[in-house]
Amino acid sequence: MTPHSQDKRLERMDDLVSLCARRGFIFPSSEIYGGINGFWDYGPLGVELKNNLKARWWQRVVRERDDVEGLDSSIICHPRTWEASGHVEHFSDPMVDCRACKKRFRADQLDDAGKCSAREGSSEHDFTEPRNFNLMLKTAIGASEDAASVAYLRAETCQPIFNDFKRVREAARQKLPFGIAQIGKAFRNEINPRNFTFRSREFEQAELEFFCHPNEREKWFAHWLEERMRFHRELGLTPENLRTRPHESDELAHYAKQAEDVEYHFPFGWQEIEGIHDRGDWDLSRHSEYSGKDLGITDPDSKEHFMPMVVETSVGVDRICLAVLCDAWRVEELDGGERTVMRFHPALAPLKAAVLPLSKKLAEPARKLHAELRRSWNVFYDDSGNIGRRYRRQDAAGTPFCVTYDFDSQEDGKVTVRERDSMSQDRVSIDGVAGYLRERLESLG
Amino acid sequence: MTPHSQDKRLERMDDLVSLCARRGFIFPSSEIYGGINGFWDYGPLGVELKNNLKARWWQRVVRERDDVEGLDSSIICHPRTWEASGHVEHFSDPMVDCRACKKRFRADQLDDAGKCSAREGSSEHDFTEPRNFNLMLKTAIGASEDAASVAYLRAETCQPIFNDFKRVREAARQKLPFGIAQIGKAFRNEINPRNFTFRSREFEQAELEFFCHPNEREKWFAHWLEERMRFHRELGLTPENLRTRPHESDELAHYAKQAEDVEYHFPFGWQEIEGIHDRGDWDLSRHSEYSGKDLGITDPDSKEHFMPMVVETSVGVDRICLAVLCDAWRVEELDGGERTVMRFHPALAPLKAAVLPLSKKLAEPARKLHAELRRSWNVFYDDSGNIGRRYRRQDAAGTPFCVTYDFDSQEDGKVTVRERDSMSQDRVSIDGVAGYLRERLESLG
Repeated sequence: MTPHSQDKRLERMDDLVSLCARRGFIFPSSEIYGGINGFWDYGPLGVELKNNLKARWWQRVVRERDDVEGLDSSIICHPRTWEASGHVEHFSDPMVDCRACKKRFRADQLDDAGKCSAREGSSEHDFTEPRNFNLMLKTAIGASEDAASVAYLRAETCQPIFNDFKRVREAARQKLPFGIAQIGKAFRNEINPRNFTFRSREFEQAELEFFCHPNEREKWFAHWLEERMRFHRELGLTPENLRTRPHESDELAHYAKQAEDVEYHFPFGWQEIEGIHDRGDWDLSRHSEYSGKDLGITDPDSKEHFMPMVVETSVGVDRICLAVLCDAWRVEELDGGERTVMRFHPALAPLKAAVLPLSKKLAEPARKLHAELRRSWNVFYDDSGNIGRRYRRQDAAGTPFCVTYDFDSQEDGKVTVRERDSMSQDRVSIDGVAGYLRERLESLG
Repeated sequence: MTPHSQDKRLERMDDLVSLCARRGFIFPSSEIYGGINGFWDYGPLGVELKNNLKARWWQRVVRERDDVEGLDSSIICHPRTWEASGHVEHFSDPMVDCRACKKRFRADQLDDAGKCSAREGSSEHDFTEPRNFNLMLKTAIGASEDAASVAYLRAETCQPIFNDFKRVREAARQKLPFGIAQIGKAFRNEINPRNFTFRSREFEQAELEFFCHPNEREKWFAHWLEERMRFHRELGLTPENLRTRPHESDELAHYAKQAEDVEYHFPFGWQEIEGIHDRGDWDLSRHSEYSGKDLGITDPDSKEHFMPMVVETSVGVDRICLAVLCDAWRVEELDGGERTVMRFHPALAPLKAAVLPLSKKLAEPARKLHAELRRSWNVFYDDSGNIGRRYRRQDAAGTPFCVTYDFDSQEDGKVTVRERDSMSQDRVSIDGVAGYLRERLESLG
């Protein structure tokens, strides 16, 4: 990739946001009502891309391993969970209210707020003392509306994993070391959602909590850091746009021994897409204390009783999705004009192929081929408009292969298969298309 | 299946709830904190079962069709959405408070409430007038806490589909008739969650909204009713436990022309697992009115402008999951004792096979076979305990095939494959196990 100036990159981000809406990858939630700040919907192409990413994570982290169990816990859990985790007390930003303009600002961003307000023509602020504003979304459940019915939308998917640690360990008959993983929604009332889907109020996490003996935490931290970097590299993300950044000692939580972020070089700068954290025994100890249930383990041989240590890998699904979109997006010169192409890794591409008859007259045999290919993959069919325009649409959707059924196909029993990135074309027998695609998709996948 | 008396069936339900927790299918959320009424977690086996069900729905309803587009919208959307849908005004139960015992009851269930209270020793109630209690879960977003920041957790996944109707139609270049489908969480503050996961406060829906010309609504209603019944039958649900029930005219919403429930015969009675509803143009008309955006369609040929009619299919994912569990569950006599077996359809089974070496000494070659099979399916490995007990565990997990590596395997290059339901055993060459499983799993699937 050629280097871009900061402005050029920001321009590209706007183009990406607009392409995503136009093509149905991602667009604002409730657009017809003017949207709702910090909430996004995934359209027909976006939901396939995101599902492919989640399926790949699940395959690598859960299904391919004997030592990781899957979980799908509720978004709303017992409110004591968030007292034990420290979220009720500490998960907050300091806020001030302005008595004059009646608005609320982050105390640590007062300069920005001042400027902002000046633009709006307000003369002078009259700030209250800073108060902590909790970032958890609160609701009430049950028929009564007293304090006992307060509940929170989970602020992270990992806490219910700690809640369920004992149950899952016993049901799955696991011994240390082993992990519990889940994918799901989490919610944070971000004061200032920004950078497209990067910082939103509703987002999806894929988290693994890996439980081990205190002596082995460093070994497993190294293991998971390597595994997770391999995962990101295998998605085809440009290596120069990917790095790890160890936390400085003053960034570490008091209970953490080690933490490292995986960062991606977005158009808006280097930003965390995943965190690998040594959380020590903080969570299990706190939940033992708050629930009155001992979550410790007794070693069957030595009879030693101890609290397992936790190595966590926590990835923002929307964030890797956005990294994949940024990384794949290209505008290329072509025949004096240009084409937009999403160079997705084939395993992530929403559509694996498109069947395009050169004319509507060829619809019947082309439909037949489409029906056959669709048994194995998500395959699109399009017989409207000129073939160049149809190629452009598939390029912009990131479809790796276009299969063109033309007037010769009836005669020679062959179709043209065009590859998205090189635009090279192969003439392939109709019977052999499935095999050809399987080989090409799997050699890349 | 042999008939059961009502008591016998209720006993079975308790047994199922207990098996589900013990084996890690489903258990109460936040168990260590005493649970939280109406919220459930899916454990290692449950998450696979549920994901397989969702994948199958997505395959049938979205991927195999040219006329349905997928969507994944946010759980929190613009609050005007729920004004337009009528939920803010009408989605409520009448409640009364008791001034004496300070508890809240459903006005239409006062008899039950009275009994309940009598048991608790309370003498006499002093009820307030009934008030409507809205079933939507409410929260607040943004920095300020004024009315403008009120938001709701979606009470159904279909309303965001209507919000996004125009955007998806244009991005996917669809023409009528076509549908938009999504799977996701929804929330209702049920006063009385009950029947295991059947009526819970957080649940998952898989919904399709199919948009068509007013002249075609009856045709598409019939089409989708048939398609959806075929889906349930193909899951292997016992035909006698499955029926459709048309709504009586006094059950129909004022805008609905036709509605039919798919019901399953649970141990606690016949209950709805899916609804196929003709919603008319109610939703699109209301969202047009409330958003000020015309969601109508102009026919390209006749230039007629009209509001599309909607046929909805709405299935509770947790409910079909529960139906599958109830239907699969058997206790069978075996060798004077008994075995618990989950007779899952192989496409739904959390694990497709288990590799079981007869002795830990055979771990190495058995592990090799396990690694090979795992490339294609979710395959378990277990080398601990006696083989009979290991079979029992796989029966209770619903694993269709057990592959036993024994001391002869080294000599003759063969393993024993045992089928779950018939318990018949085949001797199969090690090289041929993958092919054998593929054939058996796919002929059943």
